[in-house]
Amino acid sequence: MLFKNITIIDENYQAQTNMYVLVKGEKITYIGKETPKDYSFEVYDGENKVLVPGFFNLHCHIPMGLMRGYGEGLPLDRWLHEKIFPFEALMPAEDMYWGSLLGISELLASGAVSFTDMYMKMDAIVKAVSESGIKANLSDGLTSFNPAEGFAENSSYKSLNYLMDYQRSATHDRIIGDASLHGEYTSHEKVVREVAEYAKANELRMHLHLSETKKEHEECKARHNGMTPAQWFNHCNVFDVPTTAAHCVHIEGADFDILASKGVTVCNNPSSNLKLGSGIAPVKAMFEKGISVAVGTDGASSNNNLNMLEEINLAAILQKGVNNDPDFLKTDEVLRMATINGAKAQGRANCGAIKVGNRADLVVYDFDKAHLTPVHDVAANLLYSAQASDVVLTMVDGKILYKNGEYLTIDIEKVKYNSNRICKEKLEQLK
Amino acid sequence: MLFKNITIIDENYQAQTNMYVLVKGEKITYIGKETPKDYSFEVYDGENKVLVPGFFNLHCHIPMGLMRGYGEGLPLDRWLHEKIFPFEALMPAEDMYWGSLLGISELLASGAVSFTDMYMKMDAIVKAVSESGIKANLSDGLTSFNPAEGFAENSSYKSLNYLMDYQRSATHDRIIGDASLHGEYTSHEKVVREVAEYAKANELRMHLHLSETKKEHEECKARHNGMTPAQWFNHCNVFDVPTTAAHCVHIEGADFDILASKGVTVCNNPSSNLKLGSGIAPVKAMFEKGISVAVGTDGASSNNNLNMLEEINLAAILQKGVNNDPDFLKTDEVLRMATINGAKAQGRANCGAIKVGNRADLVVYDFDKAHLTPVHDVAANLLYSAQASDVVLTMVDGKILYKNGEYLTIDIEKVKYNSNRICKEKLEQLK
Repeated sequence: MLFKNITIIDENYQAQTNMYVLVKGEKITYIGKETPKDYSFEVYDGENKVLVPGFFNLHCHIPMGLMRGYGEGLPLDRWLHEKIFPFEALMPAEDMYWGSLLGISELLASGAVSFTDMYMKMDAIVKAVSESGIKANLSDGLTSFNPAEGFAENSSYKSLNYLMDYQRSATHDRIIGDASLHGEYTSHEKVVREVAEYAKANELRMHLHLSETKKEHEECKARHNGMTPAQWFNHCNVFDVPTTAAHCVHIEGADFDILASKGVTVCNNPSSNLKLGSGIAPVKAMFEKGISVAVGTDGASSNNNLNMLEEINLAAILQKGVNNDPDFLKTDEVLRMATINGAKAQGRANCGAIKVGNRADLVVYDFDKAHLTPVHDVAANLLYSAQASDVVLTMVDGKILYKNGEYLTIDIEKVKYNSNRICKEKLEQLK
Repeated sequence: MLFKNITIIDENYQAQTNMYVLVKGEKITYIGKETPKDYSFEVYDGENKVLVPGFFNLHCHIPMGLMRGYGEGLPLDRWLHEKIFPFEALMPAEDMYWGSLLGISELLASGAVSFTDMYMKMDAIVKAVSESGIKANLSDGLTSFNPAEGFAENSSYKSLNYLMDYQRSATHDRIIGDASLHGEYTSHEKVVREVAEYAKANELRMHLHLSETKKEHEECKARHNGMTPAQWFNHCNVFDVPTTAAHCVHIEGADFDILASKGVTVCNNPSSNLKLGSGIAPVKAMFEKGISVAVGTDGASSNNNLNMLEEINLAAILQKGVNNDPDFLKTDEVLRMATINGAKAQGRANCGAIKVGNRADLVVYDFDKAHLTPVHDVAANLLYSAQASDVVLTMVDGKILYKNGEYLTIDIEKVKYNSNRICKEKLEQLK
């Protein structure tokens, strides 16, 4: 496919107008001002269009759209125990499959090409990801309340091995299995050390929740001689493998140095943190310490959608506001958080930028809209004026998955029908 | 027009399913579970649709979309002096007209039916508002740096009288002229007192900027023996007429009591306050003091759009987050801020709620979307999951102005063309 005469966000995350971008197979093979010689493919007219590297959603619980708006107004702990856990307990693998497709359809429609996830029933989620064509780093976050239980006895061990087996035998590399710990407050030291060792031995990546709420953060310190969740996980060798730590709203003091020196990527989830009343992550201090920051939606049940464009907009303006610094997070820095920082954290080389040789993970925005007129600054319009509905094409590994409101790999009517059905059934059962 | 079998947000800001709503002329004449007897109008099928009272955008500078993304990353004072003022100085009335239509088209597409504005060249803005069919409280914010100059010599006096004349002779009541002071830092006491007296004598309303930035707030105290902008305006009798005070990010101490006792409506503009690094308004303290709070976008040059749905979402989750209280601002309270609080501040009786006898200021959202599936909570889906692009119909005073992406009173292609042309011309002149 040849994108013709299109504005692009280039590999330095700057806008370039009137460009040609050629995609062959899975990859970008040409970027330039002239028509490439060797194309014999479909031509996409780029007039009033902007070609953007696809976003990486670095923290998600993909099927949770099924609980969107359920338990409105409750704080995190009550919301989880009174609403979410009882609902989830009733969900068989089939429900997870439909919930995953529901979430993936939201991601593709808002410019995301990949996500990092933590949930249950890996076979159902793998099936949805595989069919849809999106990329994902999947994991089943370990929770373990029985100190006698080892990692091998935990259901997350089975999930991880299922993912590793899938990855070894798959004909594509879109799905990566990650090790995962739900959080400090849901696991004991013995099993955490085992997971860390297993991840290291198998050269895996790690995905976990870290200091999301003040309560979680302070209770950890009380339990572990003043050690914060970051300090405690580090003490358990968890950060010896490349790690994505979601939230980090309440990290403090030495936590910053630990995350920086261990190369941990922090995933900032501003919508969920605001909506659940958890607070605002100290992103500026993370930048100053050299911590790599990515952006994520969290689950749609606390967000309450999986709109990555909205999330990135919020991540940027919120930090400008709380730091009284409109110049913090320039547009190229925001775009890096949303793309390359996430791609690196997922362990995906050749992703996260529009660059010759990179995977063609591309999104087209239609700028012929009142709210995107005029264009003084392409990147500012994209980040601060655009809406997810301006996305008119989403391509992953060179394959178009979403175009002009239509899904090419997902039967969206079936997905909506089944999501409504599942929701109705669960609420009946919970009565 | 009869809305048939539709979910509505009722006058208590609660969702009711399977309702019939009849509109005759400008008004809502029937709401009920049964088909009304006396309809002979168009029938609108409400399946998967939600009928919402139109939003009131209580602080805007409507033509500033022409400067969207211009001067990215600068703090408020530099952004104004180095970028905005020089650009504005080059804009004739015709440019204001096209800029206003650009802004109005954004408002209508994001569920707004009315706005409170402060800008220049009233004839051009009145023309755009009048043609479009939207409602607006318009004003030309007084700035006066010459202490010898009285209100009658100031251009804003002429603007106000133009608006008052228009209002007296118009065949509709959609346009209301307000008195307006740009801010404490742009006017001297003599003229401020004159504007306050004039407003009182003519039974007008007042629109002003208040304590938007820390700098403005502290410099006022230094100038006026410790009086804050709220205290100083009160001392000048400005609040003796119904007032809308935009921003109020840095109000403190006695300011809260003054605004509460004088019945001042605060307009919260979270996107602009965050993006310019101005800070976060103390909305919870305002609620606790009984201050009426409305929501506004501010100008599209600092927002960087006029998406009212996005603004309301942010207003709600931001306050939950900074107050660590997910239960602060229940959905009905958020909806009141976005509708009835604004309507009251504009002095519009019988507006801001879906109620028999009220004006038919109605917006339809299409809920048949992945990101709005399933529906556990209609209001939560509307406020936290929906996108402006879910708006499929906007009606003001019973007249449809926007339907399925088409504007019925605005030639949107002409508006985009002229907005691009104006932007190009100004940048050439500024070179």
